[in-house]
Amino acid sequence: MTELTNAEVVAHDIEHVFHSWSAQAKLAPLAFRTGHGSTLVDHDGNEFLDMSSQLVNTNIGHQHPRVVEAIKQQADLLVTTAPANANATRARAAELILDRAPEGFNKVFFTNGGADANENAIRMARLHTGRDKVISRYRSYHGNTGAAIVATGDWRRVPNEYSRGHLHVFGPYLYRSEFWAESEQQETERALHHLERVIQAEGSDSIAAILLESVPGTAGIMVPPPGYLSGVREIADRYGIVLILDEVMAGFGRTGEWFAFDTHNVRPDLITFAKGVNSGYVPLGGVIISDEIAANFDERVFPGGLTYSGHPLACAAVVATIEAMEEEGMLDHVRHLGRDIIGPRLEKFAAEFEQVGEVRGVGVFWAIELVSDADKRTPASAAYLGALKKAILEQGVVPFIADNRIHVVPPCVITDEELERGLDAIEQALRTVPVS
Amino acid sequence: MTELTNAEVVAHDIEHVFHSWSAQAKLAPLAFRTGHGSTLVDHDGNEFLDMSSQLVNTNIGHQHPRVVEAIKQQADLLVTTAPANANATRARAAELILDRAPEGFNKVFFTNGGADANENAIRMARLHTGRDKVISRYRSYHGNTGAAIVATGDWRRVPNEYSRGHLHVFGPYLYRSEFWAESEQQETERALHHLERVIQAEGSDSIAAILLESVPGTAGIMVPPPGYLSGVREIADRYGIVLILDEVMAGFGRTGEWFAFDTHNVRPDLITFAKGVNSGYVPLGGVIISDEIAANFDERVFPGGLTYSGHPLACAAVVATIEAMEEEGMLDHVRHLGRDIIGPRLEKFAAEFEQVGEVRGVGVFWAIELVSDADKRTPASAAYLGALKKAILEQGVVPFIADNRIHVVPPCVITDEELERGLDAIEQALRTVPVS
Repeated sequence: MTELTNAEVVAHDIEHVFHSWSAQAKLAPLAFRTGHGSTLVDHDGNEFLDMSSQLVNTNIGHQHPRVVEAIKQQADLLVTTAPANANATRARAAELILDRAPEGFNKVFFTNGGADANENAIRMARLHTGRDKVISRYRSYHGNTGAAIVATGDWRRVPNEYSRGHLHVFGPYLYRSEFWAESEQQETERALHHLERVIQAEGSDSIAAILLESVPGTAGIMVPPPGYLSGVREIADRYGIVLILDEVMAGFGRTGEWFAFDTHNVRPDLITFAKGVNSGYVPLGGVIISDEIAANFDERVFPGGLTYSGHPLACAAVVATIEAMEEEGMLDHVRHLGRDIIGPRLEKFAAEFEQVGEVRGVGVFWAIELVSDADKRTPASAAYLGALKKAILEQGVVPFIADNRIHVVPPCVITDEELERGLDAIEQALRTVPVS
Repeated sequence: MTELTNAEVVAHDIEHVFHSWSAQAKLAPLAFRTGHGSTLVDHDGNEFLDMSSQLVNTNIGHQHPRVVEAIKQQADLLVTTAPANANATRARAAELILDRAPEGFNKVFFTNGGADANENAIRMARLHTGRDKVISRYRSYHGNTGAAIVATGDWRRVPNEYSRGHLHVFGPYLYRSEFWAESEQQETERALHHLERVIQAEGSDSIAAILLESVPGTAGIMVPPPGYLSGVREIADRYGIVLILDEVMAGFGRTGEWFAFDTHNVRPDLITFAKGVNSGYVPLGGVIISDEIAANFDERVFPGGLTYSGHPLACAAVVATIEAMEEEGMLDHVRHLGRDIIGPRLEKFAAEFEQVGEVRGVGVFWAIELVSDADKRTPASAAYLGALKKAILEQGVVPFIADNRIHVVPPCVITDEELERGLDAIEQALRTVPVS
C-alpha cells in the first residue's frame, strides 16, 4: 500500500466506492495512509492536523497505541461471537459504560452505531409505554435508517409496526429563536411551553418518547440553556413519556464529561451512544437502559437484535478507550481546552470578524456560525464555506464544515500548542477569504 | 481474561448486557474464549464443533489466520477514517466484491451490517423510481431498523419520508404451499401469478422495489425453485420495479457461489450483503449498485450515509476473506460438502425419522424441518427443539435452531470428517429425544 500516491488512492476509491450524502460525480476526497494523535499523514507524506475528529468520533485521537493493542489482542483471541453467547470482553465494556452512567442504569444493549442505537431506544420506549409517536426536534440528527424491519416478513416485524410516527418541535436556539425570545431564560421557558403545547395538541397519551441530542451536534452544537433539559424531564414525567437522550456525538469526552447531560441536572430513561465510546476504531453503538425500562423485557422477548450486537473486537476497543481516557485524565484536559483556549479564541473571532455571527460550545465541541449579513443573520453561502475549507486545508489543517458553520471539534487528546495552531489556521482563513 | 471460568463469564455478561431477541430473565448463554476453524473453545477448556457459524456469518471459520493478520496490520496503519475520505483498503475491498458481481455493477456502498444495507437499497430504489411501496415476502428477514431517519430533524429526513410503505406476498415453499400446488413447477407458476396480481391490485405505479432474499435464510432456507427468481425479474421489468436481492446470509460462499442467485439465471438491480463478506470479523455490510441506479446520484446528492461507511478495519477483513476463500478453493469445497455429504445424510434422516418432514438446501445452507405429525405437517414443538438443542450441545456440537427447524450451517471450511461428526450428533439427537 505504501507505494501508492494520494492521486492513485483517490482514483481507485471513487471508481468503486459510493460515498455517503454525496453526488458521486462531484467527489474530491482526501486520503490518509496513517495517523497518530491529532495528526493525519497522507500517501504523499504530507501531515495534517485533524480539527474534525473525522465525523466527530475519534475522541481519543488517531491510532492510540493502547486501543490499537487491545484490538490486536482481541483479534488474536476471538474476533467475533454470536450475540446470544456470553462474552467476557463485552461484559467488561458494558460494566465500564454503566459505571459512568447515573444510578439505576444496569443494562447495555449494543448495536453497530448511533442509528440503530436510536432505533432500539425508540423501540423500547414504544413497548414500555404502549404508545407510538416520537417527538424529536428540528435541527437534529439521529441516524439514517427507517425501513428494514417493516420490510421483514416474520414475527419480528409485527411488534415494530406503527401506523403513526414522528413529529418535530423547535428547541432552544436563541441566535435563531423560533419563539421571539430576547433572553436565554425567555428562550428556555418558551421552548418548554412550545413542547408541552405540542404534546397536549397531539394527545399526550399518544406520545411514547421525547428523543433529543443532549447537545445537538451536526445541527449546530446548540448547548441547551440552563433549565431546558431538566424542564423537558419534568414535562416527560407529567405525561408519562420516556426521555431518550442521544449522546452519540456529545458523549464520551466531547464536552469534558462522560455524558453531556451530566452538567444539566437531568436523568434520562434511555441513553444512546456510539462514536466516542471507542472512537469508532471498530463500529459500535448502544443503548444504556434504566432499570424501569429493562424490567419490561425480563419475561417478555425484546423484539430487536442484530448479528454484531456486542461484537468482541468493538468491545475490546471500548474497554481500552475508556481506561485510557480515565488514566490520561482526558476529561480534565478537554475542560481545560474549552475553557482556556477555544472559548477565549472564538470570542476574539466574534469580536473581530463581522461574518462571525455567533460562537458557542463546550469542551472540544464548538460552532462558529458564519453570516453574510450580521444584522439579518443571513447564513453565509456554501461557496464561502467551501473557500474557507480550502484555505484551512491549504494550511495543513482538516476542518469540519456543516452548513454555514465551522465546527471546532478536534480530538480530546489535542495538545494546547496543536490546538492554537488549528485555531490560527481558521483565523487566517477568516481574515483572508472574501465573505459571501 | 484466561483465568475466568465459564460460569463467571456468563454471570458477568448477563448482569450487564441486554441480549437480542430475548427475555432477559431467561438467558442461558454459552461462552467461548477462542476458536480455530470450525472449533470453539470455552473458558473451561471444552471444545465444541460449530455447526451454526454463529449467526450464519463465520463462513471462513473462526480465527482464520490470514484475516486476523490483515485486521492487525490495518489496525497498526489506520483503524478508521471519515467516509468522505478516500481509503486504499476500502477501494480494494470494493473492487474484489465487484469482480464477483455480474457485469454492469461498478459501485459499492458500504454500511455497518445487513439491516442498513437493505435500508439503503430501499432508499435507492425509491429515489430511482419515484415510487414508495416495497414488496417483500412473508417468511423473510431483512434487518431490525425502521425509525431513525424519520426521527431526524434535518433535511436528510425529508427525502426519506414515505407515507405508504411495505407489503408482503407469499413465496414458493411447496412443503407448506400457500397456492394449493402439487408440484414444484405449479408452485413456481402460482407464486409468480400471485406476485403479479398483488402488484396489479396495489397499483403497479406505486411499487418501487421487490426485495427478496435470494434464498430465504432464517425463515427456513427455501431454495427458490427453477424459474422463480427469473420469473420475478420478468415481472419487475414489466412494471418498472427495482429488484433487490438480499444476499446477507446466502452470499459469499454459503451456497457454494459468491452470490446465491448466480445459479438462478437472474440479474438483480441491487444486491445487499454483510455476514460472509468478511465473516463478521469486523461489522460491515453494503449494497452493490447497478450502473443504471448509480447514475441517479452522479449529480444529485444521495440522501443516505453513516459514520462507519467503508470502515478500513472492516474492509481489511473483506480483502483477506475474499482472497483466502479464492485461494483455498472454498466454493468448490462447499459444493462438495453439500452435494456429497450433507444432502445424502439429510435424505437418510428424512427416510429414517418420521419427525423429519422435509430436508432442503444447498452448499452449507440446509434446513431439517421437524414435525410432530407427518401427515398434517404440524410444526414440532419448541420444547422438542429445545431438547434437541440440548442433546446436540451435550455431544460438543453447537447447532443452529430456528422455529421448528435445525439449520445445518457450518463454516465453509469445515472438513469432511468434522461435518460427519456434526451430522452424527444431530442424528443421535433425532434418534434419542422423544418427539413432541
